[in-house]
Amino acid sequence: MSEKLTIGMFGFGVVGQGLYDIIKTKDLNLEIKKFVIKNPNKQRSLPDHLFTTDADAVLNDPEINTILELIDDADAAFEITKRALYAGKNVVSANKKMIATHLEELATIQQETGKSLLYEGAVCGSIPIIRNLEEYYDNELLHSVSGIFNGSSNYILSKIFNENQDYHTALKKAQDLGFAETDPTLDVGGFDPKYKLAIVANHAYGIYVKPEDILNLGIDKLGQADITYAREKNYKIKLIPLAKEVDGKIILYVLPKFVTKDNLLYGVENENNGVVVKAAFADEQFFFGKGAGGHPTGSAVLSDITALRYGYRYEFKKHAKSQEVTYSTDYELTVYLRYEDEQILDTLSFNSISERFYGQEYKYVIGKINLQQIIKHRDLIHRDGYFFAEIA
Amino acid sequence: MSEKLTIGMFGFGVVGQGLYDIIKTKDLNLEIKKFVIKNPNKQRSLPDHLFTTDADAVLNDPEINTILELIDDADAAFEITKRALYAGKNVVSANKKMIATHLEELATIQQETGKSLLYEGAVCGSIPIIRNLEEYYDNELLHSVSGIFNGSSNYILSKIFNENQDYHTALKKAQDLGFAETDPTLDVGGFDPKYKLAIVANHAYGIYVKPEDILNLGIDKLGQADITYAREKNYKIKLIPLAKEVDGKIILYVLPKFVTKDNLLYGVENENNGVVVKAAFADEQFFFGKGAGGHPTGSAVLSDITALRYGYRYEFKKHAKSQEVTYSTDYELTVYLRYEDEQILDTLSFNSISERFYGQEYKYVIGKINLQQIIKHRDLIHRDGYFFAEIA
Repeated sequence: MSEKLTIGMFGFGVVGQGLYDIIKTKDLNLEIKKFVIKNPNKQRSLPDHLFTTDADAVLNDPEINTILELIDDADAAFEITKRALYAGKNVVSANKKMIATHLEELATIQQETGKSLLYEGAVCGSIPIIRNLEEYYDNELLHSVSGIFNGSSNYILSKIFNENQDYHTALKKAQDLGFAETDPTLDVGGFDPKYKLAIVANHAYGIYVKPEDILNLGIDKLGQADITYAREKNYKIKLIPLAKEVDGKIILYVLPKFVTKDNLLYGVENENNGVVVKAAFADEQFFFGKGAGGHPTGSAVLSDITALRYGYRYEFKKHAKSQEVTYSTDYELTVYLRYEDEQILDTLSFNSISERFYGQEYKYVIGKINLQQIIKHRDLIHRDGYFFAEIA
Repeated sequence: MSEKLTIGMFGFGVVGQGLYDIIKTKDLNLEIKKFVIKNPNKQRSLPDHLFTTDADAVLNDPEINTILELIDDADAAFEITKRALYAGKNVVSANKKMIATHLEELATIQQETGKSLLYEGAVCGSIPIIRNLEEYYDNELLHSVSGIFNGSSNYILSKIFNENQDYHTALKKAQDLGFAETDPTLDVGGFDPKYKLAIVANHAYGIYVKPEDILNLGIDKLGQADITYAREKNYKIKLIPLAKEVDGKIILYVLPKFVTKDNLLYGVENENNGVVVKAAFADEQFFFGKGAGGHPTGSAVLSDITALRYGYRYEFKKHAKSQEVTYSTDYELTVYLRYEDEQILDTLSFNSISERFYGQEYKYVIGKINLQQIIKHRDLIHRDGYFFAEIA
């Protein structure tokens, strides 16, 4: 039933090390034969003979039947994954950018080669959302899938709302703790959750949408005025990717959102992730867990590895049935916009405006606007002095 | 890849009807050929020729390859399930009592016959906990699995804590709404969550434990004094089944518990269910959803049905590896006991007592006690004037 896995692992960073920690405590009928690393001079915690800089040697080694791809560089990761599949090896990856960007091509290569590519660790760390979308919800048309998919930005928002820190202090703290990169744009700009959303959208609805075709605005322009506004109304602000079905159209975007206490995501704090799935019959379901870190992500990768031993593959079942749904950006949202120049209200052409506030420090409107307008004028919205968020 | 399912369905109650509602909206390559019912004279929403009272005709019909067992009577359900498996049919059941009571025998029959018995709908309605324990956590030794597995008693507790109702008013309301049976013992006495716990324990740890060997105390003796105590300390009371690993021993019990705000189960209200899984590497994970009702449970049953089309079976992988763990009742708990007769404190022989309260209305102690003592003196604890709960 269970095949022995001989593994070549690319990368030995946080996730790779975390995975190794887990594997060494088990008797799993698997062996990591080689780690491919970039820098041969770095001090390693394992014997030298386990490391190599020679990717080809590993990809051409017939004894190695499984590649773990755990490097940061999305382009290099894509090359490794393609070559490994064509070389007849199964692949487990945790690289969301690589998967999201090349999902359709990767699905085709899997079909051609009959090999399996699994990537549970790429989306929401330890939360088994891909597997559940793929297997458990495979016959329900889902109303929506949303959540908190990015631990770094959520950590910052928790510090702001629970500890009264301002955005820049909270960001600095996250960077000091290693939760956010020196260039935090991927996280706080909403790119990282967008990659994950593109993957989720495929497993929820069977559609392939390129990340660059999905709107993302982040929390990087969040100001004290917006925080004060949220506090007064008993809201928290969360950065929320959403996939939603409306009359056979699939709507996708990543936006900050004012959420109320009755929202399941309201209580997801710090570096945790949460996923809310709304389905016609199963109703509202919620998954919560650690969204990042070596051990949680390592455990998701391990779960994929053991699934490989039982011949598991994503069947992309929904894509076969997805003729009836298409990606659309024609969707009306209710939003909050803090702005400086009055001109923007004309440019954005809101469908309607329900509230206007003018103060000495700042002004904002609340109104309804089409997603296409937001996409078209993204650069106008995304600048200092402006903050844009969805509001229920 | 996908085999056509021709289905014989036993029972056409809430779950059966809910499932039928879902199926009829889909194009699923399956057909419900016959419903086996007890009372032929009841008015039905479907054509007469679909119903029969003749179980044999369905179990012996070679065209029917799948049996859905959705009746209440656990003994009859067991007979149907056994006969169906031996007749070469796959079975989906939502009968927790039947599954929990006969789990080991049913696993053996599956092995003998090569057929598949799935029962996601038996545990926590729409929450895919069995599938996740079986597939996703199959290589992590879990620290614990606990949760809110019974919607009726949780509904009652929510009314008490959120709407200031007393136990009997809340129970009556639950009965009026159909959430609790006329004889509510199964729910409020903690038997229903105990059946689910026995099933969960098997899929989490690979052990077979008979429900009668697991301690359960419910909320049926909850009094105003206990509610007041909880409120003063900012606790809520929840009815919590727990499976926990301690040094290779598996501890199982169902007890009311005082929970604090930082517990993920604190916010699970009304008829919802929640499951908390603590794992060495994945860390703390939480699943939330509707725990009962025709549509949520129907959607879990449907998920099992579609899994059958792809040849899915529980592999009971953990049982193969479970030599290292055994069921044990030797475990120290910290508990709250409201009592009347002082004698009980001697009889129970607490390991230690940290708080004593004597008032005009009631008295209680808080102390440490071995689970074996609770099991031994269950009847002494479970009576009017006494309330017993775990406390963190």
